[in-house]
Amino acid sequence: MWFTCEKNILQEAINTVQKATSSKTTYPILEGILIKAIDNKVILTATDLDLGIETYLQADVHQNGSIVLNSKLLGEFVRKLPNDDLTLKIENNNVYITCQKSEFTLIGNNPAEFPGLPVINENSMYEVSQDILRSMIKQTIVAIAQDETRPILTGVLFEVKEDTLSFVALDGYRLAIKSVNIENKNNITAVIPGKTLTEISKILEPSENLVKITFTPNHILFNLGNTKIISRLLDGDFINYRQILPDEYRLRVRANVGELMDSIERASLLAREGRTNLVTFEIKEDKLIITSNSQMGKVYEEVKINLEGDELKIRFNARYFMDVLRIIDSEEVYLEFSTNVSPCIIKKVDNDDYIYLVLPVRINGNN
Amino acid sequence: MWFTCEKNILQEAINTVQKATSSKTTYPILEGILIKAIDNKVILTATDLDLGIETYLQADVHQNGSIVLNSKLLGEFVRKLPNDDLTLKIENNNVYITCQKSEFTLIGNNPAEFPGLPVINENSMYEVSQDILRSMIKQTIVAIAQDETRPILTGVLFEVKEDTLSFVALDGYRLAIKSVNIENKNNITAVIPGKTLTEISKILEPSENLVKITFTPNHILFNLGNTKIISRLLDGDFINYRQILPDEYRLRVRANVGELMDSIERASLLAREGRTNLVTFEIKEDKLIITSNSQMGKVYEEVKINLEGDELKIRFNARYFMDVLRIIDSEEVYLEFSTNVSPCIIKKVDNDDYIYLVLPVRINGNN
Repeated sequence: MWFTCEKNILQEAINTVQKATSSKTTYPILEGILIKAIDNKVILTATDLDLGIETYLQADVHQNGSIVLNSKLLGEFVRKLPNDDLTLKIENNNVYITCQKSEFTLIGNNPAEFPGLPVINENSMYEVSQDILRSMIKQTIVAIAQDETRPILTGVLFEVKEDTLSFVALDGYRLAIKSVNIENKNNITAVIPGKTLTEISKILEPSENLVKITFTPNHILFNLGNTKIISRLLDGDFINYRQILPDEYRLRVRANVGELMDSIERASLLAREGRTNLVTFEIKEDKLIITSNSQMGKVYEEVKINLEGDELKIRFNARYFMDVLRIIDSEEVYLEFSTNVSPCIIKKVDNDDYIYLVLPVRINGNN
Repeated sequence: MWFTCEKNILQEAINTVQKATSSKTTYPILEGILIKAIDNKVILTATDLDLGIETYLQADVHQNGSIVLNSKLLGEFVRKLPNDDLTLKIENNNVYITCQKSEFTLIGNNPAEFPGLPVINENSMYEVSQDILRSMIKQTIVAIAQDETRPILTGVLFEVKEDTLSFVALDGYRLAIKSVNIENKNNITAVIPGKTLTEISKILEPSENLVKITFTPNHILFNLGNTKIISRLLDGDFINYRQILPDEYRLRVRANVGELMDSIERASLLAREGRTNLVTFEIKEDKLIITSNSQMGKVYEEVKINLEGDELKIRFNARYFMDVLRIIDSEEVYLEFSTNVSPCIIKKVDNDDYIYLVLPVRINGNN
């Protein structure tokens, strides 16, 4: 193998596939990147067996071949080189990477030992733009379960029904649903691991370029053009989330996202201190009073609101509110309530494409 | 106590004194900031008993008084407030902090329990500008000892001799000396704890405003105008560093700092991997060859240099070189060598105000 390419282009490709290499693995070969030179293309592949990423770049390939190189060392060395022509060459079982007056000699591993990615036939595809996919991930992944007691909840449901693609995540305390219109090929439900989506969202760009998505019974393939991302799906059925959504509400609050977030953030300072993270909302005619207290003191906050319906006193985990206010793409939100033991729904005022539900914490006694 | 001031001004004062509060303390009162309102001034004080910081701000003081408030809570709450008039008031043993529609009620501690800072008579002072003091700290503190086996080496020597103020630090492997001219009042040697200097350099601004420095037998006081910083000095005599400095050299290399740094950084990638951090310098007529190797591979780097004297092969801990190249304020440096077992001196090409000495690692056999 022997090829020459621009250092920055190789660096970008390494950064992309590195998102699938695991540093904590019992198979040392998986700490490597498979580099394959064929004709005028260099293909990089990395996998942790759950998630696999493959990307290619144009290069002057003088001699075809392949090798596996340690991902961390290769990445750090290439990043620290000046941007100029870089040559990678195998000679006498050594790999030489040269750029200007720098030469890096690395021990390679046998490419035959590197596990191949599943081969997926891309004939039935859904298409979404990169920026939409990014926002769908960002607005739902916050609600996946962090612990593994119910593994299915550590993923995001991918559901196509009629002309709508929805991403759904829930952890038993809150639920997030983001929907977009899609040209429907087939209805489908599948659950994508949260880790896969976290890594993909680092690769996606704020562009309208299309991502082609293909499913097999066990895998999902995201095709970004130069880059393919293949992930295992999670086994099992997702929770029937529709029955959790309330059909109606008894009161509705309209509030500014920034003001609400700042007030909850200050209130949660003491809430965190008390380790309970509880804040109390007192919804009044024209204001929302947010309070919290701990042994150290208490916080009192007022936020200007518009209320339709009756007044209510209800209590929440501050973090679940902060999480949604940080990611919702709207200046104002509606908060819909029924009683102080039923869920609160958070929505954008001008669009129904995003729904976030959060359960209250029961108020005991009069505190 | 009752005063009103601008939120941003109080926040800045809190940030300043917080550098002396320790979160790991067995005296809970030291997790607090002493706030004292007198006439039109509010004075904030914090101390961990080794280091004390006091700063004041202008405020509308409606009622004099004092209180101790938890540093972390106060700081986080004030930081999260909008910038507007902020009022702090004590009523019925509670402290109320209000700003717009936010009210924070905190439990205060008895100011009588807060340890006072030592009172220092500022009649004999050295004066240095803030930016010079900053660069003196930055260019020497890197060489202080990290372990406590010889406590005196965890500090920086402050030495005034004739018309020169020198900062000196050494850890047994390298030595850094930064000198400036000063109007001499008295010769002095004192050793300032590294932690004190680290915190002070965060408070110092890149300005020509003078810092007034006063010593007592056990303490040093830095007076920045609004802010006073008082620190214990370290006990004991500093090492006679002058006898470590070689009088002459056998060869001298002139090199570009950026090129040298990039090459050593790449070479040190593998050096770190091998846990030894060793790089080998081969000094030739017109180039410096830097190599390193580990089980994973090897790096070969060439840096263009100017050599006066004979060729030499010598080995160093890469980190000790990186440390100085990152902070030296010069585009080009001289490296002065004698043999491969004697120290290397690093200097700026156009100024003698900074000297960095680093010991080589002995070369065993032929590797």
